[in-house]
Amino acid sequence: MKGHDSKKRQQSDPQQGQSSQTIYGLHAVRTMLQRHPERVTAVRVAERRDDPRAREIDDLARQMQIPVHRVDAQVLKQNLGDAAHQGVVADIRPLPPWTEDDLLAALQAPAQGGRAPLILALDGVQDPHNLGACLRTADACGALAVVVPRDRAAHVTPVVRKVAVGAAETTPVVTVTNLVRTLKLLKDAGLWVIGADAAAPKRAHEVDLKGGVVLVLGAEGAGLRHLTAQTCDWMVRLPQLGAVESLNVSVSAGMLLYEAVRQRG
Amino acid sequence: MKGHDSKKRQQSDPQQGQSSQTIYGLHAVRTMLQRHPERVTAVRVAERRDDPRAREIDDLARQMQIPVHRVDAQVLKQNLGDAAHQGVVADIRPLPPWTEDDLLAALQAPAQGGRAPLILALDGVQDPHNLGACLRTADACGALAVVVPRDRAAHVTPVVRKVAVGAAETTPVVTVTNLVRTLKLLKDAGLWVIGADAAAPKRAHEVDLKGGVVLVLGAEGAGLRHLTAQTCDWMVRLPQLGAVESLNVSVSAGMLLYEAVRQRG
Repeated sequence: MKGHDSKKRQQSDPQQGQSSQTIYGLHAVRTMLQRHPERVTAVRVAERRDDPRAREIDDLARQMQIPVHRVDAQVLKQNLGDAAHQGVVADIRPLPPWTEDDLLAALQAPAQGGRAPLILALDGVQDPHNLGACLRTADACGALAVVVPRDRAAHVTPVVRKVAVGAAETTPVVTVTNLVRTLKLLKDAGLWVIGADAAAPKRAHEVDLKGGVVLVLGAEGAGLRHLTAQTCDWMVRLPQLGAVESLNVSVSAGMLLYEAVRQRG
Repeated sequence: MKGHDSKKRQQSDPQQGQSSQTIYGLHAVRTMLQRHPERVTAVRVAERRDDPRAREIDDLARQMQIPVHRVDAQVLKQNLGDAAHQGVVADIRPLPPWTEDDLLAALQAPAQGGRAPLILALDGVQDPHNLGACLRTADACGALAVVVPRDRAAHVTPVVRKVAVGAAETTPVVTVTNLVRTLKLLKDAGLWVIGADAAAPKRAHEVDLKGGVVLVLGAEGAGLRHLTAQTCDWMVRLPQLGAVESLNVSVSAGMLLYEAVRQRG
């Protein structure tokens, strides 16, 4: 019965430290304190750091009554290895996965900085490294969320979190049972759905990505499934000047997200 | 003495099958037959393939008097696993590494399709997966070569070749003893040197990349070394709207190469 109880406790109180995640680096910790202080449970700063940027972290945390611990640099090294933590680490409550409803609700909320929503959808990407890399890039490009189908696709695992170097804690992953249905709902919500395909007649920069868009990428090799491609408003192609068959899906995602950010100025 | 002899034979005849590489996929094999038939030693086609695209490969090879072997699909699967070989494989002589002189000589040759030279330089990228991913993207974007320093940097290994899915056989890697010196020689040859830095005042699309350019990326975390940054004509930044500290170097390379291809139209 004990096992059952403890499982229940974890379910009813998902904010327990047990399920906490770690983020590190000045930029990542400061951003989390500024945007989502309610998710930060503790901050650790290397003893030797006593400079304006470290003090800013310290001040931000104290304003929010978040405990700040001074720790030995060796301890950080033991915990994080060679990660570029810059002597600043935060323990945070994990980002809960979003449902399709969460995503649709987020579209109704006023956009951060007035930016039109930018969503990345991955149609059957199975490699956790690729999902992690896509999350990292989606975060850097200000994407609202990354949408993945429930079946035959990678989901957020420890490997994905590691490759995403913190982005899994900031960019929500939305797991949906029927990707085509979700894309249609996003179209109904006013977004354009743009798919990438090597044989598409238009290049990415020839399509307007300034409004709200969903960028859809297929699995490596297979590309977009037929029904997914049919659901897209536009298909665009990426550079293919070489001898190699295709771009890596996380690089394709980077190019398309870059193009959207570029157009938005 | 036998060991010594056979080593010598390999040195004096580097085109022996022993040191051959394999490329696969319709596009990759066709492109190699069209651009560098002299490097193809044999082509293998799955027995069941009898369609126009496979026949085109067959015809191209026979025109060049390159042997074409029909093989059982199971044999290909045993050799290549789940790789997307499409039933078409070529054995090729490896691309010899380029020296700095080879690179400078290539700049004098008429550019393929009249395109201005596009070169990628990696300032201390140590992860072989990142080098392989950069090679794959450099190939797709029509880069002339990828330049890496001899010390403290990844070089072409079997892991790099695997990640590059054939691009290591088409896009030369130039190993140089002094990257700053090479960049200066490339500037003397009329190229602009563009470095990526998160704190750069200009965004990538605000700099003209239509002429001959070298795009320089630093190691993950560390970024460009001071002397390398000083050698750049322009520094540009890539999207950094999120909570994560930096983009992966191969994604950064993809964005910058994409931007160059976009500007060139």
